[in-house]
Amino acid sequence: MESDLAEYLDEFTRRDWETLDPGAVTDPVRVAVVGLGWFARDWALPGIARSPYTEATVVTDVDGSAVEAVAAERDVTGVTPEEFRSGAAADAYDAVYVATPNATHLEYVRAAAEQGKAVLCEKPLEATLDRARRLVEACRDAGVPLMVGYRMQTDPAVRRLRELLDAGVAGDVVHVHATMSQTMLGELGGDTDQWRLDPELSGGSALMDLGVYPLNTIRFVLGADPERVSGRTRSEHEAFADVDEHATFRLEFPGDVDALCTVSQNAQHASRLEVTGTDARLILDPAFYEREDRGFAVVRDGTRVDVDFDQVHQIEEEFAYFGHQLLADEPFHPDGEHALTDARALDGIYKSAETGRPVDLSDDAA
Amino acid sequence: MESDLAEYLDEFTRRDWETLDPGAVTDPVRVAVVGLGWFARDWALPGIARSPYTEATVVTDVDGSAVEAVAAERDVTGVTPEEFRSGAAADAYDAVYVATPNATHLEYVRAAAEQGKAVLCEKPLEATLDRARRLVEACRDAGVPLMVGYRMQTDPAVRRLRELLDAGVAGDVVHVHATMSQTMLGELGGDTDQWRLDPELSGGSALMDLGVYPLNTIRFVLGADPERVSGRTRSEHEAFADVDEHATFRLEFPGDVDALCTVSQNAQHASRLEVTGTDARLILDPAFYEREDRGFAVVRDGTRVDVDFDQVHQIEEEFAYFGHQLLADEPFHPDGEHALTDARALDGIYKSAETGRPVDLSDDAA
Repeated sequence: MESDLAEYLDEFTRRDWETLDPGAVTDPVRVAVVGLGWFARDWALPGIARSPYTEATVVTDVDGSAVEAVAAERDVTGVTPEEFRSGAAADAYDAVYVATPNATHLEYVRAAAEQGKAVLCEKPLEATLDRARRLVEACRDAGVPLMVGYRMQTDPAVRRLRELLDAGVAGDVVHVHATMSQTMLGELGGDTDQWRLDPELSGGSALMDLGVYPLNTIRFVLGADPERVSGRTRSEHEAFADVDEHATFRLEFPGDVDALCTVSQNAQHASRLEVTGTDARLILDPAFYEREDRGFAVVRDGTRVDVDFDQVHQIEEEFAYFGHQLLADEPFHPDGEHALTDARALDGIYKSAETGRPVDLSDDAA
Repeated sequence: MESDLAEYLDEFTRRDWETLDPGAVTDPVRVAVVGLGWFARDWALPGIARSPYTEATVVTDVDGSAVEAVAAERDVTGVTPEEFRSGAAADAYDAVYVATPNATHLEYVRAAAEQGKAVLCEKPLEATLDRARRLVEACRDAGVPLMVGYRMQTDPAVRRLRELLDAGVAGDVVHVHATMSQTMLGELGGDTDQWRLDPELSGGSALMDLGVYPLNTIRFVLGADPERVSGRTRSEHEAFADVDEHATFRLEFPGDVDALCTVSQNAQHASRLEVTGTDARLILDPAFYEREDRGFAVVRDGTRVDVDFDQVHQIEEEFAYFGHQLLADEPFHPDGEHALTDARALDGIYKSAETGRPVDLSDDAA
């Protein structure tokens, strides 16, 4: 098996989408970063800086001290959200990265679209399906390109897994298991006054914040969209009284492929994706968190091959792809329409959790 | 973590149920083996022989040549099924192990009960819930002890996992993933003329034959029974036209614990049980097949401990427990009532697969 695999897994971390010469880029895409939470500061800004196709030039946040701190750390201009929306600094950026609370994506994306800027919006797209649709519409109406921040899709481990599936290494896929969990309040210092616990701002917690990872990654590696979804949400602790603390869901893909997923904001850390086919099992474990080295294993006929490869900076890869596609004038795979399929699925799972019945996504199409 | 664990996992393979001295057993329980398929011949007969509390004395099967072959190999008396049912050899055994096709368990268990013999019946108990109830009734009416062959329950790895959960090592359990799959026709030489593909004889395939393992093992380690079940079954290939080739199901346990399970008769071999709690993840992988060395891992706060231990002969353990409890005059944990809970759950999952809706097991109780 090892020799077969070597063919597929040669140059594991190659950027298969890359047609430009990264060394020849003289004018990288200038990015305004909207929202300076821990992810933007610890991951997105370093990723933008590492990527040869992007540079951060402007930052904004409702928290003025965060803007000041980042402007002091990096060669960027800090502006207020009002200044950003008014387009005061619009000459200084070509694209806008939106990493604010879910329910505020729409206002910033709309502002960016009105300024004619390309957009990279974090997932989930918005707090509700309706607002997600309006967000996509805003970009379409303005004619600006919209990418959604599915960082797993530009992760080499995920891309290689998709290639192995495409090449038939696993045979026919039969089912998928995925799990993603964390102790959110533990990790985040127990702060219960945060937007992720506010249903108006987040649209939900375990499913919106974590569920979107297995959902979208499974769609990506299978190259297919779920036809029907069902699920259950639960909340045990007071902090999660208004949002889902845990969620479990089933995605039914064409060809009778079932994916079973669990996510939790209050469980021991887990991060695993396992695809079982007739001919092999493909396993990513760890799979989903940006801070983890990814694990990649192929199991076939009693033999397990663990693939060692150079780990990448996942957010660098995401921004490199974003900048590259803009410079090469190529479309994004994870675009607005792609993300709306997730928004419909998440909405369907929440509905199923209320009624107990599966939700047919074709009934719910826009 | 290692030092805490060592306390719990000391003497990993100890028989915590054992009160008799195995070296002092002079009259082991004499067992009649009914049904001489591959499992009985390759696993049960050797297990009975290895166990200090049992010995096989009589065998029977509808296939006379199998009876002859086993009688020639081992110091046992071969009888025809008619002779067995008539009790012709009843003086030669104290207990009866039934390992025939599911839908024939009832007739042999009834015969054994009428002879006043203790019974160890393979799981699933019978092909339908109604017949399973009649089987349990037959033993109850005759006043004979009935154990059901849940070999996982006497596996040390499963017992240690249950103890860790009981001791709170995983904190509160949040969810469970389990998967069990094989290429049944591949492994079994592609023979499509077998009882496991005949719904009259089997009652179903993936769910009845494999699903009962994760179902019962999860019940055992959680020490709880599912309140609601839902599931989906699929068949792709002609050989599985009349039974389920694949099944996925969700078990809802008290305290909002969800277990997500996949089983398949036509997928790459998988055998895994993973329990995620607030404080740790406990993993058995491989978990379910008698021929595998079990894997046992505890993952907590980024540290994974893989526990090495002496592997046991799983079927020896099962028969040792069976014989021991009879000699010690102690009850069986996996008794008929215990098995009826599985029969109700399996029946509920099949119903859910038809209607698409979850099935409340309390509505369906006998």
